[in-house]
Amino acid sequence: MNEHGELVVTHKVRIRFNETDALGIVWHGNYLKYFEDGREAFGRQFHISYLDAKQNGYATPIVKTTTDHKLTLTYGETATVETQYVNTASAKLVFRYLIKNEADAIVCTGETVQVFTNLKDNTMSLILPDFFKNWKIKQGLLDA
Amino acid sequence: MNEHGELVVTHKVRIRFNETDALGIVWHGNYLKYFEDGREAFGRQFHISYLDAKQNGYATPIVKTTTDHKLTLTYGETATVETQYVNTASAKLVFRYLIKNEADAIVCTGETVQVFTNLKDNTMSLILPDFFKNWKIKQGLLDA
Amino acid sequence: MNEHGELVVTHKVRIRFNETDALGIVWHGNYLKYFEDGREAFGRQFHISYLDAKQNGYATPIVKTTTDHKLTLTYGETATVETQYVNTASAKLVFRYLIKNEADAIVCTGETVQVFTNLKDNTMSLILPDFFKNWKIKQGLLDA
Amino acid sequence: MNEHGELVVTHKVRIRFNETDALGIVWHGNYLKYFEDGREAFGRQFHISYLDAKQNGYATPIVKTTTDHKLTLTYGETATVETQYVNTASAKLVFRYLIKNEADAIVCTGETVQVFTNLKDNTMSLILPDFFKNWKIKQGLLDA
Repeated sequence: MNEHGELVVTHKVRIRFNETDALGIVWHGNYLKYFEDGREAFGRQFHISYLDAKQNGYATPIVKTTTDHKLTLTYGETATVETQYVNTASAKLVFRYLIKNEADAIVCTGETVQVFTNLKDNTMSLILPDFFKNWKIKQGLLDA
Repeated sequence: MNEHGELVVTHKVRIRFNETDALGIVWHGNYLKYFEDGREAFGRQFHISYLDAKQNGYATPIVKTTTDHKLTLTYGETATVETQYVNTASAKLVFRYLIKNEADAIVCTGETVQVFTNLKDNTMSLILPDFFKNWKIKQGLLDA
Repeated sequence: MNEHGELVVTHKVRIRFNETDALGIVWHGNYLKYFEDGREAFGRQFHISYLDAKQNGYATPIVKTTTDHKLTLTYGETATVETQYVNTASAKLVFRYLIKNEADAIVCTGETVQVFTNLKDNTMSLILPDFFKNWKIKQGLLDA
Repeated sequence: MNEHGELVVTHKVRIRFNETDALGIVWHGNYLKYFEDGREAFGRQFHISYLDAKQNGYATPIVKTTTDHKLTLTYGETATVETQYVNTASAKLVFRYLIKNEADAIVCTGETVQVFTNLKDNTMSLILPDFFKNWKIKQGLLDA
């Protein structure tokens, strides 16, 4: 939890040669991979990964993404992905991302929204699944 | 040009096995590839591709993307990408995308914004480059 | 079937911008995607795709790949993938690939080997599955 | 240097969700990314990366790859990539790879071959470039 009471996880990614394009910079679509890397790091630290959802009978597919690109990244750089959980009352998982370069300048920001779908019938859950409600209570994000 | 006076290009993409993920559906980040496929098809038809920009001394990096996912795509399906040029007075290239499945249902919508950067000094152009102004005039999107 | 009695399918691939790397050429690992494109085109023409295998209770995972790179491909080029079925007595699917550029020069050659695994218990089939034996008989590659 | 006098670097990779395919396992083509990760880790430790070559006026494009798949990897696993430099008298960079799962079982082996091309005229060097000869001498792989 950061100074604003927000759940944030910081994760380093080393830029791969194969993530660059003919302009010599990271191809824009790869930022969604860095977001996933950040989200995974968040999931590992706060026990709310794809695998946790799966064990409880849910998938958490992405339904919305946004990326805003301020600067570029090139091969050999190490970027920092800050992944912040955005608390919402709806049956959604919302994360905000801040990618910084080694000079601590903001390279890219973005957001993803995930929903909970039942693994059995592939329907979208309109209410918070119990396992996720319990997770929020445990994190102090929801009253028991 | 469609019935609304908009420049729209339709392009088919066959879903590759390697574009799916462990949920059996196209991984969300791959939609930015389909958008690029659509944008490229647009560029080929209306002569406004990365290569056209390059010949005129410009790169057109993506500075913003959004995706909205309504349905999923699986391996073996053929999707249709409709790429619409969004006319704007600013020195930007804006495209809107509509991806439909074989049943003509909307799978994903989205938008990308590109700016013009000078290949020599990598600075962003704040005014419309001449080659692009001429392109707009030629398409009837700007008065000569 | 070509003049040598071999099953060969020719497939065109347009080189995507996002398949290039910082050297301005297609990143070597993407050739395995082009091989998959070729293999899929073969499968569609000769009805022996992943989906055909799946319907018969089998997966056909890749167990071996080789690529040999002679020339490079850049964004905007259209390459031709020739996919040749290599007949073998073993319970394997072997394909050879020849990728040519627009000048008909050989850019890359390679080979993939697939085995048949039972979807139920994930075991590898040591003998030719019936559906594949029938396919070979139908293609004149095996006596009934 | 390992017990056999070979230069070997060990690198961990966490399997990303987006590296899996609809069979629930890592798509075979992604192993070339893990090889690149291993090669990069080797390059960082022994100062012989793409960037070192570039500073000396060379690119080191891949001209040959092989992969042999024994087992599969799934999302959430951490694999170990062992990258071994294979000493050769020719003007080539040869690496062998061994990917192991958490149970220390071999998942995949492979090899890549790179040549040295002159960044100025894009020609292939038929003799060892000086910077690389010096590197070999420094590593005790060549007499001064």
